[in-house]
Amino acid sequence: MSASRRRGTGTNQEAVRRHNLATLLGHVHHSGGVSRAQLTERMGLNRSTIGDLVRELDELAVVHQSTPEVGTTRVGAGRPSLDVNPDPDSVHVLAAELGVDTLDVARVGLGGAVLDRISRPTPASPDPDVVVDLVVDMLRELLASASPGSRLVGIGVAVPGVVNDATGLVRFAPNLGWSDVSLTPMLASRIGLKVPVRLGNDAELGALAEHIRGAGRHLSHLVYISCDVGVGGGVIIEGLPMRGASGYAGEVGHQRFDNGSARCRCGNTGCWETEIGSHAVAEAVGCPPDRMDQLEQYLRPGQPVPPALRRLAHSLGVGLGGLVNVFNPEVVILGGVLRWVYPLVRDDVLDAFEAWALDAPAREASIVLPWLAGDSVIVGAAELAFTDLLADPVGSLARAEGALTAVLGS
Amino acid sequence: MSASRRRGTGTNQEAVRRHNLATLLGHVHHSGGVSRAQLTERMGLNRSTIGDLVRELDELAVVHQSTPEVGTTRVGAGRPSLDVNPDPDSVHVLAAELGVDTLDVARVGLGGAVLDRISRPTPASPDPDVVVDLVVDMLRELLASASPGSRLVGIGVAVPGVVNDATGLVRFAPNLGWSDVSLTPMLASRIGLKVPVRLGNDAELGALAEHIRGAGRHLSHLVYISCDVGVGGGVIIEGLPMRGASGYAGEVGHQRFDNGSARCRCGNTGCWETEIGSHAVAEAVGCPPDRMDQLEQYLRPGQPVPPALRRLAHSLGVGLGGLVNVFNPEVVILGGVLRWVYPLVRDDVLDAFEAWALDAPAREASIVLPWLAGDSVIVGAAELAFTDLLADPVGSLARAEGALTAVLGS
Repeated sequence: MSASRRRGTGTNQEAVRRHNLATLLGHVHHSGGVSRAQLTERMGLNRSTIGDLVRELDELAVVHQSTPEVGTTRVGAGRPSLDVNPDPDSVHVLAAELGVDTLDVARVGLGGAVLDRISRPTPASPDPDVVVDLVVDMLRELLASASPGSRLVGIGVAVPGVVNDATGLVRFAPNLGWSDVSLTPMLASRIGLKVPVRLGNDAELGALAEHIRGAGRHLSHLVYISCDVGVGGGVIIEGLPMRGASGYAGEVGHQRFDNGSARCRCGNTGCWETEIGSHAVAEAVGCPPDRMDQLEQYLRPGQPVPPALRRLAHSLGVGLGGLVNVFNPEVVILGGVLRWVYPLVRDDVLDAFEAWALDAPAREASIVLPWLAGDSVIVGAAELAFTDLLADPVGSLARAEGALTAVLGS
Repeated sequence: MSASRRRGTGTNQEAVRRHNLATLLGHVHHSGGVSRAQLTERMGLNRSTIGDLVRELDELAVVHQSTPEVGTTRVGAGRPSLDVNPDPDSVHVLAAELGVDTLDVARVGLGGAVLDRISRPTPASPDPDVVVDLVVDMLRELLASASPGSRLVGIGVAVPGVVNDATGLVRFAPNLGWSDVSLTPMLASRIGLKVPVRLGNDAELGALAEHIRGAGRHLSHLVYISCDVGVGGGVIIEGLPMRGASGYAGEVGHQRFDNGSARCRCGNTGCWETEIGSHAVAEAVGCPPDRMDQLEQYLRPGQPVPPALRRLAHSLGVGLGGLVNVFNPEVVILGGVLRWVYPLVRDDVLDAFEAWALDAPAREASIVLPWLAGDSVIVGAAELAFTDLLADPVGSLARAEGALTAVLGS
């Protein structure tokens, strides 16, 4: 909540209390459990204030307290500080990832635990109506097996394209053939639940998840590259997602990279995406364009590396060098098919990167694979779904209670 | 100060008061004067709190209050709200811009008024020692004509290169031939004043100035392109400068743009800088490389536009389209030599831009010239110099008083 507080305003006591409650819940959710002593230190508040706030969250049944395990290191004399743990069975969100190959959904509890998941193939001609109906069915399936009384506080959807979360519109998702699709209204009305529905670009959400729980944890500046048919970037700056004026930022695949003749799906020629996207990868390793679902098999370690893949690695390294020059990040995280490509051609990528990037930002940047493996994007969608709760726990839970009552009553 | 407060902490009364004081002074400095009623509204505090804060700043002699002019619009009944004005003669900063052609310094008062300025040619072989000595002489000249009792609260220096402000190091400024120059210690010791010295990249400072006082005023997402021998970007995201992990961010001129054979001063071939930097502009209009000081004359309106300049305009538009795809800004501001180039080839630039940029972010972005004309960078250096005062007025002024006493006493 502190990130969204209006700059230039003063503060008053009630706002301070709500801010503190939200901040504390954020610590618990992100850490998966934290001691009262750590909360006191991180938040700079005194023990009795922390105690009051924890008690309030306990009464809302979103956290529970426990005595730390025997053998836990004790600093100083006195009672060991109680641990404050998120309760994944009392509050959860639904997350969906709309991919070119598969539609994935997950139910994620407070604290980040993935409680349940379903994956189905994406229809060959993914008409929005058909996709939304499928996704809604899958989400209902997840809800049916949720703990009774567990409160749903949000739904988050990762889309491979340019979205406007404020209006719920998918502006352009070329891999699905979608243009100006009112995804949020369609999903919200068909699922028939009064919970906030949030949309995010897949790269942005991959970055968010890696920032909160992965390779970008405890870092403030990272770039996540999502690389499937489309190539996009999710950028975290000073610990906050770079969304741009309307949430369209991050289309790093659509900068001119060279004089190449390959036509990009965005209409231009010479985009970085045409050099390193999954179609370019497939061509480099001899995977037929109609067998993209088998691409991973062509990227198994132990096989000879085709020269074309080494040239692709060079383009990857040069492009990453450019992005490091632009963003000066602490870490660059390679998602999508790059998770399989990078280990095969790491030296080629790093040679090109180190030759291209300016020395000063290059020294600061590490190039790594996602800690969340293939789950970065869907975990990011879950984190997006949690934002309302983490901004205003009391309000969000009151609305969730209302929604639950309405469903049970009908 | 709100931007730098640690996230995840709670708040207490003393911190709140200091925060409010700093915030209020920021409003006054940025607006050049604001009524108490506007402060009450912007800060969300009650009138008597605002009154206390203003009184404190008045006692520190950084602001003075006045009755608004006759004829000012009055909202509601009652006394007209007093205006709170910055006092440019009581608090000032020094700013320096180290350019390839000229060294510029200015004395800037609280509220942003440029009170005095000096410009001298940059030495042909700009050895750091020589440049620092020259700049120190120029700054002392400015101080000699300052109002007696006016307090110097900071010095800001704009450098055409990659700087690390925290360590005071110019990592790489190839146009000056500088590499790892300890500029801040050199400048601070030779000027012999106990004031904070801050370094910034020229593009970053141009963006800052346009954001506070220019084309980016009241906007939150902007990209400023500085274009001289070097091409760099200053980016403002969510109202804050994008500095990167170590302050090296923004080197948008050093992304690969094409297969070009021109070798860039950074060592690579194909950089965007080689396509649109001032050397490329000069070549396009037939200005000899040893007469770069006359480049503006080749860019006067009314002359025929050479085909090479139209091709450069195309490269400019394509690169801007890529940056808009990456940043989704509200405005892109063209500084440096682009201020002269753009009016000559505006249609070519916009055609290429609109063809390249994705529709969604393109619709949000305006491409404009700087409101501060050629002063964006030096005004930005002044704003950088004001940051300590605006973070902690009381502390900054106490230190300034101490410095003044030390100088007078010696």
